[in-house]
Amino acid sequence: MSDWGVYLVTQESLSGERTTQAVVEAAVAGGVDVVQLREKDRNVRERYHLGRQLRELTRDAGVTFVVNDRVDLAAAVDADGVHLGDDDLPVEVAREQLGPDALIGRSVSFVDDARRAEKAGADYLGVGAVYATGSKDDIDDDEHEIGPERVGEIAAAVDIPVVGIGGVTADNAAPIVEAGADGVAVITAITGADDPEAATCDLAGTVADARED
Amino acid sequence: MSDWGVYLVTQESLSGERTTQAVVEAAVAGGVDVVQLREKDRNVRERYHLGRQLRELTRDAGVTFVVNDRVDLAAAVDADGVHLGDDDLPVEVAREQLGPDALIGRSVSFVDDARRAEKAGADYLGVGAVYATGSKDDIDDDEHEIGPERVGEIAAAVDIPVVGIGGVTADNAAPIVEAGADGVAVITAITGADDPEAATCDLAGTVADARED
Ligand code: NI
Repeated sequence: MSDWGVYLVTQESLSGERTTQAVVEAAVAGGVDVVQLREKDRNVRERYHLGRQLRELTRDAGVTFVVNDRVDLAAAVDADGVHLGDDDLPVEVAREQLGPDALIGRSVSFVDDARRAEKAGADYLGVGAVYATGSKDDIDDDEHEIGPERVGEIAAAVDIPVVGIGGVTADNAAPIVEAGADGVAVITAITGADDPEAATCDLAGTVADARED
Repeated sequence: MSDWGVYLVTQESLSGERTTQAVVEAAVAGGVDVVQLREKDRNVRERYHLGRQLRELTRDAGVTFVVNDRVDLAAAVDADGVHLGDDDLPVEVAREQLGPDALIGRSVSFVDDARRAEKAGADYLGVGAVYATGSKDDIDDDEHEIGPERVGEIAAAVDIPVVGIGGVTADNAAPIVEAGADGVAVITAITGADDPEAATCDLAGTVADARED
């Protein structure tokens, strides 16, 4: 059902003068497939209120909506699921709390971890960091640059969708998809763009073209 | 059922060379009534593993066990409940996720907020900071020193148990209970004591004596 072409991770502090709501509206207009509520520097109460708004925006548009890290927050805002890393609750615990229909994502960087996550019940994988980001504000804790090749190895090793993440732009997205990923996840390529709607559309086109190759 | 005399908030980084497990075992031996898993500087995966151990320790001893901040973690370790502050998910959301039997606590500093928390369904209140702690590592985000008098005003304004928190030691605990609190919550008065078991027992005695006055 769900397409994984362009996956937006929100971060208002990397969105210039724009609110995250405005960025998500633009991304939805530009054809984003998945939105993840992240906002690392905002407390849970703030993310709860924002998340309820994003849930409305995405539901109306038929866009998948997931919450970073917190299973309780995902349930509280009626998200489609949660995205978990090594430091978070295990996938099995999230599954038990959110039920069989929830979408549970897992961040991995290695083939073994990818296989383990799939076995534990993850529905998709965020794989990275594909490219060095040079910014701790960007994607996850560890900033090992794994490159498109490793993304391809992981995509070949599992049957669930794989999204490449970390330093992705419209200029370097194609090799990730050509290597076998189902899509790409970005923060600043959309949140920091002059025109987030156009940037989303551009990324979606790049991913679609790369799939045809 | 539950007594609220001595409420221990865990923090291994304030426990000298001891593990939190060792501190909790000593506190249980010393007669602690409630243990809250806090460990602000440890990630959720670590708190999950630790929480499962503390759940066993406390269950065996008939001691109430709650988790700070996170509703999902509380459910994951089968805690008796969760303790929430202003920045956390609302009490109503925690209630919906944890059910009618869960113990939901709320941090407050003002009479109005205490009444609101009770109305929202909180089962007990952590009220403070009673005394200035001079340490950001101690008790909660705001370090306004409210004193035993305010604790008493809050205890008189609500029907749920009230625990005074913030800078509490065996030397200054009595006025809090004399003012109307059901007990006191501490970190370092137990975790930093030469003998955590004796310190717990000492606090419990102080609270019991103050109740009789
Ligand atoms: Ni990581």
